[in-house]
Amino acid sequence: MFLSKLESLKNAIKLVGDNQKFTETEEIPLAEAHKRVLAEEIIAFHDSPPFDKSAMDGFALIAENTFGASQSVPKELKVVDAIGAGDFSDKTVGENEAVVIATGAPIPDGANAVLMKEYTTVDGDDLTIYSQVTPGENITPKSEDIKKGEKILDKNTFIRYQELGLIASAGYNTVRVFKKPRVKIIITGNELVEPTKEEMDKAKIINSNQFTTKAMVEDSGAIAEIAHAGDSFDEVREAVLEASKEYDVVITTGGTALSKGDVVLDVIQDLGEVLFHGVAVRPGKPAGVGIVNDKMIFALSGQPVASMGQFDMFVRKYLFEMQGRFFDFNIQKRSAMLKIPSQLGRTDFIRCVSDSENAKHVLNRGSGIIRSMVEANSYIIIDENNEGYQKDDMVDVVFFDSLLW
Amino acid sequence: MFLSKLESLKNAIKLVGDNQKFTETEEIPLAEAHKRVLAEEIIAFHDSPPFDKSAMDGFALIAENTFGASQSVPKELKVVDAIGAGDFSDKTVGENEAVVIATGAPIPDGANAVLMKEYTTVDGDDLTIYSQVTPGENITPKSEDIKKGEKILDKNTFIRYQELGLIASAGYNTVRVFKKPRVKIIITGNELVEPTKEEMDKAKIINSNQFTTKAMVEDSGAIAEIAHAGDSFDEVREAVLEASKEYDVVITTGGTALSKGDVVLDVIQDLGEVLFHGVAVRPGKPAGVGIVNDKMIFALSGQPVASMGQFDMFVRKYLFEMQGRFFDFNIQKRSAMLKIPSQLGRTDFIRCVSDSENAKHVLNRGSGIIRSMVEANSYIIIDENNEGYQKDDMVDVVFFDSLLW
Repeated sequence: MFLSKLESLKNAIKLVGDNQKFTETEEIPLAEAHKRVLAEEIIAFHDSPPFDKSAMDGFALIAENTFGASQSVPKELKVVDAIGAGDFSDKTVGENEAVVIATGAPIPDGANAVLMKEYTTVDGDDLTIYSQVTPGENITPKSEDIKKGEKILDKNTFIRYQELGLIASAGYNTVRVFKKPRVKIIITGNELVEPTKEEMDKAKIINSNQFTTKAMVEDSGAIAEIAHAGDSFDEVREAVLEASKEYDVVITTGGTALSKGDVVLDVIQDLGEVLFHGVAVRPGKPAGVGIVNDKMIFALSGQPVASMGQFDMFVRKYLFEMQGRFFDFNIQKRSAMLKIPSQLGRTDFIRCVSDSENAKHVLNRGSGIIRSMVEANSYIIIDENNEGYQKDDMVDVVFFDSLLW
Repeated sequence: MFLSKLESLKNAIKLVGDNQKFTETEEIPLAEAHKRVLAEEIIAFHDSPPFDKSAMDGFALIAENTFGASQSVPKELKVVDAIGAGDFSDKTVGENEAVVIATGAPIPDGANAVLMKEYTTVDGDDLTIYSQVTPGENITPKSEDIKKGEKILDKNTFIRYQELGLIASAGYNTVRVFKKPRVKIIITGNELVEPTKEEMDKAKIINSNQFTTKAMVEDSGAIAEIAHAGDSFDEVREAVLEASKEYDVVITTGGTALSKGDVVLDVIQDLGEVLFHGVAVRPGKPAGVGIVNDKMIFALSGQPVASMGQFDMFVRKYLFEMQGRFFDFNIQKRSAMLKIPSQLGRTDFIRCVSDSENAKHVLNRGSGIIRSMVEANSYIIIDENNEGYQKDDMVDVVFFDSLLW
């Protein structure tokens, strides 16, 4: 079906992007928001810190009263109060007075510096200081991190551990985020069986795609459920139809049987619309994408490596952006350690092992060789206008790690 | 306490490493093994593919019988059987015979190639072919990916999506992995309150470390639970003692109150052994590490940025390696966009924004400025023997992404 007209990768990606959908949003506890995407701006409800705060355990005092103090010329002050963490003092610090203060406690009125306790000795109310401090020393000023009323994070921000801390400090105990997409993965293929250590029936093949595809969906921030269908039009049609009603996205793998034609694409055509089938890429040429019940259906190859490549080319970006997170390949330049031929008019995703300087492609590149993906840590991407590279040419590399959620 | 003798970062990391513990192993379903670490070698129970397999929908035949066939000079063959996916044929393909074959089906005896259906027409048993194939064409040879009996993955391999596929193909439906470490995080500090949008009581500060620290533990492949303690020796002692009995690792944050000294370290000293307290680094100088009940206790700062830095320096590596996964900083070279002063004898972790060529450090570097971590995507690491860098010097950069599980 597709061989007569292969879509260019660029066009195929654009066709997917033109049909981008977004998940709804939900309010969740901040404690569960790690690695989610903000669906609201964060406006600070507080200054952070909310007051001038001691950065050290020591004595809050008037810096000018310490000037000239040293180990050989100590000075004497009077302790008038003590503030533990979480506590505060109503006293105003006067000339030659000091207040005991814990790290994190509010600086009392009148004081403008904190002297570390290491540079003091104390006897009842009598404080001897052996060092001087400058005004502001060891004080973390109010609103140094966050100003009340300020926008501190944009909508669509990905929430890492550090954003969690900032959002908490701004006063949010819950946060509005995009829902995780729910993805149904339909594994087709009469030949597939579960992993077994026993001798397998003739013509049977272990179903590995169910594991890799589910893990890739999870690596895209989404939730995956697996279903199995045979190769028949009716079975696949029933599975795709049901999934398109109940899930946000449907992914199929394999299931093209000679007698029936390309079953999955025929099903999509029957139930909805095929956006494209067949892309000028390697691996992954038979990729198909369509829409059923307003849901995107990604028809991936049954060949393990082809399906992983197709996922990286089409599905990741769609799942990321569905939940408000921008996705693009993070291209790094590396020096090719081997000559790499390619074909004009086709985009190649060449599995390779890259370090901080070089990229060496994995030689065994069949679309069934899972090991080539296991040995690799990156792709060299060779675009359709390029006939390949000579040794030592600088090439475009994308690390697998950089594709993950 | 620590100011008199700061440990060098290198020594501090070595002291942690000398006390590295490992989790036990467990057998789990392969479907749950994504991002776990293998605690066994994977030896293949099967060849993969388990037989010579058709890579296309088409006709299995004798390649030599197709020689010379073309659009203008078609050849005629006889169809003698049909094989769907998951099926097989007992027939032996003879001269000028062909067997209908689906992608993934076993090549029948006698055949040595597959001709794609696109290059044929068929009328009952009569097959007309318009193209020739070479011996082996469109056949995926048996054991191309995996040879039965071969070791395909080492113990301690991190299981990405591609490893899942390989392990499945080798016949494993369950797999032995290292258990996830269970980590108790004890947040100390009488001043801390939960995030609230309401006006806070004077001297209170929102507890943001509970969110960041839990997320960092999760980003290290481990399971975190939060507990709260005040600042008193007795409260902290009780919390650390209980946690050290029930968890694999204990992390504390904050809790140093003047009147009591450095409570957490005093507690560790009382219950067990302090390995070090105070490290020549910035941020994160007050880091302390000790052992109680044979469990590692990481005493992190209450200052948010300091505690994140300390986590990256000490805790990540420990949690990774506890479950069998090697960890080291993935150093990249970048060009400094600004001059960066540093101090001899101290290792600096400078928050910065790096791209594929340059690194520009975040100017506001206080250890309470969570925003500096939010703006940044990487550290510039300046070791203790280095007084800093000039603009355009090449510097060592570690991306935050590369620290994650």
